[in-house]
Amino acid sequence: MSKANVPPHPLSVQAARKSRIQRPLRIAIFGFGTVGSSVARILVESRPEGLELTHIFNRGVARKRVDWIPSSVEWSEDADAVLASDVNVVVELAGGLDPAGGWVRKALDAGKSVVTANKKLIAYHGVELERQAAAKGGYLMYGAAVAGGIPVIPGLEQGMAGDRIERIEGILNGTCNFILSKMEGGAEYTTVLAEAQAKGYAEADPTEDVGGFDARSKLAILMRLALRVAVDPEEIVPRSITTVSAVDFSYARDLGCTIRQVARSEQSSGQVAATVGPTLVDVHSPLAWSRGTENMVILSGYYGGDVVFSGHGAGGHPTAVAVVSDLLALAHGSRRVEIPSAPARVSGEFEVPHYIRFLVDDRPGIVAEITGALARERINIRAIVQKAGYPPHALPFVVTVEPCKSSALQRALASIRTMDCMLEEPLDLQMLE
Amino acid sequence: MSKANVPPHPLSVQAARKSRIQRPLRIAIFGFGTVGSSVARILVESRPEGLELTHIFNRGVARKRVDWIPSSVEWSEDADAVLASDVNVVVELAGGLDPAGGWVRKALDAGKSVVTANKKLIAYHGVELERQAAAKGGYLMYGAAVAGGIPVIPGLEQGMAGDRIERIEGILNGTCNFILSKMEGGAEYTTVLAEAQAKGYAEADPTEDVGGFDARSKLAILMRLALRVAVDPEEIVPRSITTVSAVDFSYARDLGCTIRQVARSEQSSGQVAATVGPTLVDVHSPLAWSRGTENMVILSGYYGGDVVFSGHGAGGHPTAVAVVSDLLALAHGSRRVEIPSAPARVSGEFEVPHYIRFLVDDRPGIVAEITGALARERINIRAIVQKAGYPPHALPFVVTVEPCKSSALQRALASIRTMDCMLEEPLDLQMLE
Repeated sequence: MSKANVPPHPLSVQAARKSRIQRPLRIAIFGFGTVGSSVARILVESRPEGLELTHIFNRGVARKRVDWIPSSVEWSEDADAVLASDVNVVVELAGGLDPAGGWVRKALDAGKSVVTANKKLIAYHGVELERQAAAKGGYLMYGAAVAGGIPVIPGLEQGMAGDRIERIEGILNGTCNFILSKMEGGAEYTTVLAEAQAKGYAEADPTEDVGGFDARSKLAILMRLALRVAVDPEEIVPRSITTVSAVDFSYARDLGCTIRQVARSEQSSGQVAATVGPTLVDVHSPLAWSRGTENMVILSGYYGGDVVFSGHGAGGHPTAVAVVSDLLALAHGSRRVEIPSAPARVSGEFEVPHYIRFLVDDRPGIVAEITGALARERINIRAIVQKAGYPPHALPFVVTVEPCKSSALQRALASIRTMDCMLEEPLDLQMLE
Repeated sequence: MSKANVPPHPLSVQAARKSRIQRPLRIAIFGFGTVGSSVARILVESRPEGLELTHIFNRGVARKRVDWIPSSVEWSEDADAVLASDVNVVVELAGGLDPAGGWVRKALDAGKSVVTANKKLIAYHGVELERQAAAKGGYLMYGAAVAGGIPVIPGLEQGMAGDRIERIEGILNGTCNFILSKMEGGAEYTTVLAEAQAKGYAEADPTEDVGGFDARSKLAILMRLALRVAVDPEEIVPRSITTVSAVDFSYARDLGCTIRQVARSEQSSGQVAATVGPTLVDVHSPLAWSRGTENMVILSGYYGGDVVFSGHGAGGHPTAVAVVSDLLALAHGSRRVEIPSAPARVSGEFEVPHYIRFLVDDRPGIVAEITGALARERINIRAIVQKAGYPPHALPFVVTVEPCKSSALQRALASIRTMDCMLEEPLDLQMLE
């Protein structure tokens, strides 16, 4: 075929170059809280080429006004008026499904692009919103929705799309990581929670974070982009970190481990499993390195092996970096690599070793009954650990078991928890190997 | 301003959507070695949407033919014929400045896009080649040129462009990391080098890797994208890891450190400093976690703080993942966020603590002379360490000094190395804190 006969490919024609910056994107920030004001701060201080802040929307906007925003920026508490204006991009930082979802839909419907840090909205409605954006000619970017300032989503979409990712393991919630890494040092949950609340790391009602709901949304987003499965986040059953106590850190240390809130998912032979909850991790593993409010994501590819991302997953400035980077990508004509995903169901069924801690009123025969119940489910004991120094009427001790299906362990525990000596629900934690 | 009066923004018009995949990109692989055959393997096995392998070029192509490549693919040893064909993208995996650079220039000149893993070409000629691509309507992508399968370049361009990166620290050469992490376990350099060569991790002539030249090219690329300075790689003076011996690992261990080949660069008050060479790193620091052929990059942003990337930086499959991801980004109409850079000069001047190991024929007064020479340059001693068990006629001992300018230390060492008792050149290594 002679070169002259070949029509130019869309990627190589001069016209394609036209998408590079011509005039600035006009930007409206919806939600002037910690992240919103950090985004404005970067736009005002760094003046990145191609980005122009034009509107700030917030309810009761008067109390939000600050003097460092240029006078050209319009402050508004009328969402519809801003959405009907000539802005090109709506930066949605209000969070939650409502009313944020309504604003995002209206913006996309008007052919505008949307940049958001809203993990819940993207986890629950991302597929539908991306379809809407594509239909109307706008773009939806949410690099800030998972792991804040760590470029996991852009790295995954732009730099790992050529791989087949098989496994995700992550520390996706900075609040939980702050609490658990402090508890590792000996503090009790309630003390650390109060400290986290005082420092602004935890909400007055911390359920969304400590209960695992926040991490679940982020995991669902990563599953779609990395494992290419569109799942209902509600099918991932989170477990709260509030069940973990100082005694568990003490036993974990004896086992060469510590405890982190781990979000994980695996795909093998068409089955998708995912869990979020407190997990024993080897003190020498990357997940144990993560301290304070840090986040970490490990993606395991069939071709490329493990890739680790780590850094500040939350906070105003790191999250704002992700938002401004998405805006710059839009301004530069960069497009997300849209990885196709297929709907899938999620189970919590991993075959991993478990740590099980009991609190009993001691009497003869307890270990025999527990090990008997485990044996009936063909679960092998790895170790039985009982530290000295606890009173016999409230005695914590630990059994670790070889890799077994979660469902088999749950059946064994259903029988064990009816024993008269059990003072509280046995605590079983996955152990990562 | 009413909405009707506002012309549609280039990003929000329907036309922009046209850049999404319409017909497959026709791809020619130049260089069918380890990485080239891995790229072909992924394209053939995974059949990613929008990518069609059409040509494979290699010198003496007959000996390269494999039976798992579809018969539709044309094997060729005529570079010009392939460059004159209807391929849309040239994947350059031959490496080095010549003849690879000529092929890349010809491809770009014909308006084709180029995907390359060639760090040397991009480090030395990246700015000029990007200009050429832009002028002719093609695109130049090189996500595989730094840290192979770890998406540092896409993460940086797409997810961190909103930050102002101030510092880069990296383990950018898997061969050196393999050698040094094995030496950490007690092996001597020559033994480990032979093992690395046997495993295919090191070349017959390992100078490019162990001398720091490979890491220097990668650092220069990261400096352009992260610190936004276009530098002449030759201004970064690399130091070889061959000067490090088992005794240094032993002393490093006593100091709570280990030794890694670290590439680092910093920008502050307009000054750019960069070095590549063996460096003492704290055993608890991320850089010490990196073992075997792994790579690691730490980018420190003014707004977002430290972000750590880690994984397999080299090898056929990981590097191929980066190449195929670049191809997918092209096929999806994604564009690199083109971060502007300004030319800058590079110094090796860091103000950091140093480890200095001497090998002397012992006699009275040596320590006094050495500390005197350091004092004349106003360099403060941190510690003097001398382990037992070495013979006095070939006695290694170590002095560590508080943060000082490299130039001051070099002046002190110029005087110290003339002392009659010195059996070899003193070894000074930066210490990372």
